[in-house]
Amino acid sequence: MLSLESKTSDRWLGQVDSHLDEILIDHAHCEKKAAGTAMNLLFAYVDSVELCREMTEIVEEELAHFHLVIDLLARRGIRFRRLKPSTYGRRLNDLVRRQEPERAVDRLLVAGLIEARSCERFDLLRKHMRRVVDGREVDRELADFYESLFESEARHHATYVRLAKGFASDDAVQARLAELAEAEAAVIAEGDPLPRMHS
Amino acid sequence: MLSLESKTSDRWLGQVDSHLDEILIDHAHCEKKAAGTAMNLLFAYVDSVELCREMTEIVEEELAHFHLVIDLLARRGIRFRRLKPSTYGRRLNDLVRRQEPERAVDRLLVAGLIEARSCERFDLLRKHMRRVVDGREVDRELADFYESLFESEARHHATYVRLAKGFASDDAVQARLAELAEAEAAVIAEGDPLPRMHS
Repeated sequence: MLSLESKTSDRWLGQVDSHLDEILIDHAHCEKKAAGTAMNLLFAYVDSVELCREMTEIVEEELAHFHLVIDLLARRGIRFRRLKPSTYGRRLNDLVRRQEPERAVDRLLVAGLIEARSCERFDLLRKHMRRVVDGREVDRELADFYESLFESEARHHATYVRLAKGFASDDAVQARLAELAEAEAAVIAEGDPLPRMHS
Repeated sequence: MLSLESKTSDRWLGQVDSHLDEILIDHAHCEKKAAGTAMNLLFAYVDSVELCREMTEIVEEELAHFHLVIDLLARRGIRFRRLKPSTYGRRLNDLVRRQEPERAVDRLLVAGLIEARSCERFDLLRKHMRRVVDGREVDRELADFYESLFESEARHHATYVRLAKGFASDDAVQARLAELAEAEAAVIAEGDPLPRMHS
């Protein structure tokens, strides 16, 4: 369902365990960036009423999530601060073709793949925090939190792929999605030494 | 209350009468740009929790207004399309100082002045469309519409001015607001040959 070409390796869960605070701060930035991406797409393709409606909804949901993460950080006494981002987003955006309408297809599919990867990782986080050690869950609050976010990321992924089909045939979109998913998997396989949501 | 240094002249209402469709299309773009401005401010000053909360609210309200205008255009059979913007926004943004924290003050105050001018013009439009000609209101739907938007623009103006005071003293903000309002009034007095919300 999620179009991903790879599963996250245990290496990343190692980064989560050793740098959870940094991962959580990066998560807040990711939600903000997801809202910004949807806003940029609304500006770029304002002629499409359907795209505008969907982007508006995604902007609102991502900003709501941003505030949920900010509140979670505050409850845990973690200071929200700027972080050097992982190279993931930039490397995916480098794959976007320059010419329209291919550019629209790629921007939407890249946004969709980022949602898909977030979704996969939220699911991993949920399970990782739900596991029982010494008779109790490792971090029930985080497990519940990532469970609550999981569904919307999967839905956003589907929305982006559907919208891409407004700019190219179904077959062309599926073929390009497979290509981009391969490239995304390669970026993820390489990883990033900075502990981040997409490292 | 609105900090403006001038009132809109009848010249603008002449543009409204002769190019109402274009003014309405431009209004949709203005709502979208207002959402974009709030999002940009959230990205730029993400360290301030209060600013982030307020910008999130403004993004949501402006996007909701954007859709209200789009729906109004559709009801009237007006095709929403790209328009060359008036020079108003660019000329105000040119006044923003480069150095922080002055830059933050100016960006917030310019955003606040644009909201103030929109508010003043929505009020004019409301009255203009409410006037009775040949025994009936000129355009009750538009009169009601601009009446419904009026309050939020005034509130956003106040929010932006208040947030500016997080980056400079009250006196410094008031002094700079007066300067920028003078400059805004000069841009408005000059006008723009293109019929736009801020021409």
